[in-house]
Amino acid sequence: MAVKNFVPPRRLLLGPGPSMLHPRVLRALSTPLLGHLDPAFLAIMDEIQTLLRFVFQTENRFTIAVSGTGSAGMEASIVNIVEPGDAVIVGVNGVFGTRWASIVERCGGKAIRVEAPWGQIVEPDAIRQALRQSGPVKAVAVVQAETSTGVWQPLEPISHLCREHDTLFLVDAVTSLGGAPVDVDRWNIDVCYSATQKCLSCPPGLSPFTLSDRALAAIKARRTSCQSWYLDMALIADYWAEGTRAYHHTAPISMLYALREALRLVEEEGLPARFVRHQRNSEALIAGLTELGLPPLPPIGHRLPTLTCVTIPSHIPESEIRASLLSTYGIEIGGGLGPLKGKVWRIGLMGESSTEAHVLTLLNALETLFILGGWLSTPGIALQAASRVYSRRV
Amino acid sequence: MAVKNFVPPRRLLLGPGPSMLHPRVLRALSTPLLGHLDPAFLAIMDEIQTLLRFVFQTENRFTIAVSGTGSAGMEASIVNIVEPGDAVIVGVNGVFGTRWASIVERCGGKAIRVEAPWGQIVEPDAIRQALRQSGPVKAVAVVQAETSTGVWQPLEPISHLCREHDTLFLVDAVTSLGGAPVDVDRWNIDVCYSATQKCLSCPPGLSPFTLSDRALAAIKARRTSCQSWYLDMALIADYWAEGTRAYHHTAPISMLYALREALRLVEEEGLPARFVRHQRNSEALIAGLTELGLPPLPPIGHRLPTLTCVTIPSHIPESEIRASLLSTYGIEIGGGLGPLKGKVWRIGLMGESSTEAHVLTLLNALETLFILGGWLSTPGIALQAASRVYSRRV
Repeated sequence: MAVKNFVPPRRLLLGPGPSMLHPRVLRALSTPLLGHLDPAFLAIMDEIQTLLRFVFQTENRFTIAVSGTGSAGMEASIVNIVEPGDAVIVGVNGVFGTRWASIVERCGGKAIRVEAPWGQIVEPDAIRQALRQSGPVKAVAVVQAETSTGVWQPLEPISHLCREHDTLFLVDAVTSLGGAPVDVDRWNIDVCYSATQKCLSCPPGLSPFTLSDRALAAIKARRTSCQSWYLDMALIADYWAEGTRAYHHTAPISMLYALREALRLVEEEGLPARFVRHQRNSEALIAGLTELGLPPLPPIGHRLPTLTCVTIPSHIPESEIRASLLSTYGIEIGGGLGPLKGKVWRIGLMGESSTEAHVLTLLNALETLFILGGWLSTPGIALQAASRVYSRRV
Repeated sequence: MAVKNFVPPRRLLLGPGPSMLHPRVLRALSTPLLGHLDPAFLAIMDEIQTLLRFVFQTENRFTIAVSGTGSAGMEASIVNIVEPGDAVIVGVNGVFGTRWASIVERCGGKAIRVEAPWGQIVEPDAIRQALRQSGPVKAVAVVQAETSTGVWQPLEPISHLCREHDTLFLVDAVTSLGGAPVDVDRWNIDVCYSATQKCLSCPPGLSPFTLSDRALAAIKARRTSCQSWYLDMALIADYWAEGTRAYHHTAPISMLYALREALRLVEEEGLPARFVRHQRNSEALIAGLTELGLPPLPPIGHRLPTLTCVTIPSHIPESEIRASLLSTYGIEIGGGLGPLKGKVWRIGLMGESSTEAHVLTLLNALETLFILGGWLSTPGIALQAASRVYSRRV
C-alpha cells in the first residue's frame, strides 16, 4: 500500500462550513485522551453544558452535544418528539426544511409542508393558516438559518403562534448558533440544535442540542419507544446528567475537547460583539459582491450575517471560477444545492472565518478573476465598496 | 463564567476503551481542516476506504467510516437491513448482544434471542437450532468480541450456518478489529462494524463499517425506506462512492484525519505481528492476574486477546482498588456492567495500550495495592509470572 504522510494544501474556508479553526481549538484536539467515565472528563462535560447553555441563551438543564454531525441533531429532534401518526408543520424553503420533512415521514409522522420559494422566508401567516387548518399538531419546525439559500428566518412571530396553539417549537440553528442571536428561552424554543463546524469554528462531528421542559415532558409521555437507540435522549440524559452518569455510548472525547475550547472563545469575545462582527463583515462582503454584479438571493432584512448566498449571472462560469479560487488562491466557497446548482455561490463568514482580512482577500481574488475573464473593467471597485463599510463607525 | 484552560491529568488507559493514542494520531487530529468536498479531502476518503478494506480483510467496495461511535455502527447494521416484521437471530451473552436485540425491536423487527450465560460463548448449535425452528430469518447477528465479558466468539461455524440457510451474517467487531482477526471475506460476513477507540487506537467518534454485495442487494430490495436518514447507507453510498460524491452530511474531518493515521500505523506494523503482540500481552497479563487470585471469566480458548475480564473475589473491594489505581497511579481499568457490576474488572490491552511496559506497570501497581490491603503476601509473584510469558520465544 502507498498511503503517504498527509500534508494538507493551504485553505481559506469561506464556504458553507466547515469554517476556519482557531489555533487554540486545533491544539485542544490533540489533548491526550481521558476515559469517558473519568471524573476529570465528567467535569469537562459539565463545563460544556454550562457553555452551551450560554451560547443557546437558555437555562434548559438538558443541553448537550449529540455525538454526530448537525444532521444527527436534526434526526434527534424528530425521533425523540414524533410518534407514528403525529403531525408536524415544517417550513420548507430550501434543502434543510425538505430534509426535515422527510425525516418526519421516516419516523411515521405526517409532515405538513408550508412551502416558500427558495430564497424567501416562510411567512408566519402561512404557518398560522396551517395551524388553523390542521387537526392537532405535535410541533412546528422551522429553519432559522437556511444554509442552502442564506435566508434568515424570523422566529418570534412563529414562537407566538406555537404558544397560542400549545404546540412544540423546533428550530434548526445550524448556521446561526454563535454568529447570530439564538435566544432559546426568550423565544420559547422547545427543541434547538446546531452544528459545531459553522459559527462555533470547531471541526464537524458534534451537534449542540437543547430541550425545554415541555419537550422533556413530551418525551416522557411517549406511548412508543424512540425508534433510534443511538439518539434516544431519554437514555442519553442518564449519561450527561449529573449524578447517574450511566454509560450509554463512548463520548467523542477529542471532539468534546475541541468544542469546549471553541465555546470558551465565544464566551471570551461575548455574544453581542460576535454578532456585530458577523453583521459587519457580511455587509462589507455584500457591498463588494454587489459591485461585481452578484446580488444576494434573499431580500434585504432576511439575509443571514453568517452565510451570504449570491446569484451568479448566466454569462459567468461559476464552477470554473470556484475551481480557480480553490486551486490558485486556496479559497473555498460553496456552490448551489438542488435547484440552485450552478446558479448561486454560498459564501460563509462564520466564526474564525468572519474577518475583514478574509473579506478583502476574497474580493481581491474575485476582482482579479473577473478582470481576467472580461466581466469587470474597473479594478478596485469591489474592494472600495467593502472598505467604505469598514470605514463606518461601529 | 470560569471555564479554565484544560490540562488533563496523566492517564494510562487500560480500560475497555478508549485506548492510548500514538503521537502521530494526536498530531493528525490537529491538522488544519479541509472542506468535506475538497478534492484533497476526497482523496483522503479513498485512502481511508483502502486502509479499512485492508484491516477488515475484505474487497467490499462499500467500506466506510460511519459518522458516529460504534453504537451508531450497531444501529446502522440494523436499520439498513431490517424492515418491520423481519426476524433476526441475535446471540445474547452480554451487554452488546442485549443492546443489538433491542435495536432490532425498535426497528419493528422480531429479535430471536439465543442466550448464553455472561462469560460463555453463544453455542453454534444453539444458533443452528434457532435457524431450524424459526421461519424465514433475515439475518444472524453475533458479537465477535463481547466487551462486557471478554468473550471471544468463534465465527466460522456460524458463518457456515448462515450460508446454509441463506441468511445475512452480521458481526460486531468493536473490540476486535485491529487486535484480532476479522476476516470479513473469508467468513462471508455481510455486515461488520467496529469502533475507532479500541484496537485501532484512535479517538472515539467513528465506526468502521463494511457491507457485502449480498447486504447491498438486500438494501436495494427494501420495500420500505430506512427509518434513519442519518444512517441510511443508500444515501451515504453516494458521498463515499467515487464519482458522484453527493453531499449527505458534513464528514467529521478531524476524526477522519486521525483514523487515516491510525490505520497507517496498523498497516506499517502488519496484521499478523499486531495479532501476536495482542495475544502475547494478554497472556502475560492473565498469568500475572491469576497469581493475584483473579481468574479470567471466560474459559480457556474463548478469551479475547484485546480485553481481559477477570473475576474479583468478594473479599476484595474492587471499586476502591480501581479508584486507587486511577488517583494514585493514573491507570484506568474498567469495572463490570449490568449483572457483573462489582464482580469483575475489564482490562483492555488494545492498540497502543497493548505493550509489555503497560502490563508490567499495571501488575506492579496491583501488587502494591494488594500487599497494602493484606491480600497478597509474596511480592513479585505476578510480575514474575508475566515475565515468564515474555521470556518464551515468539
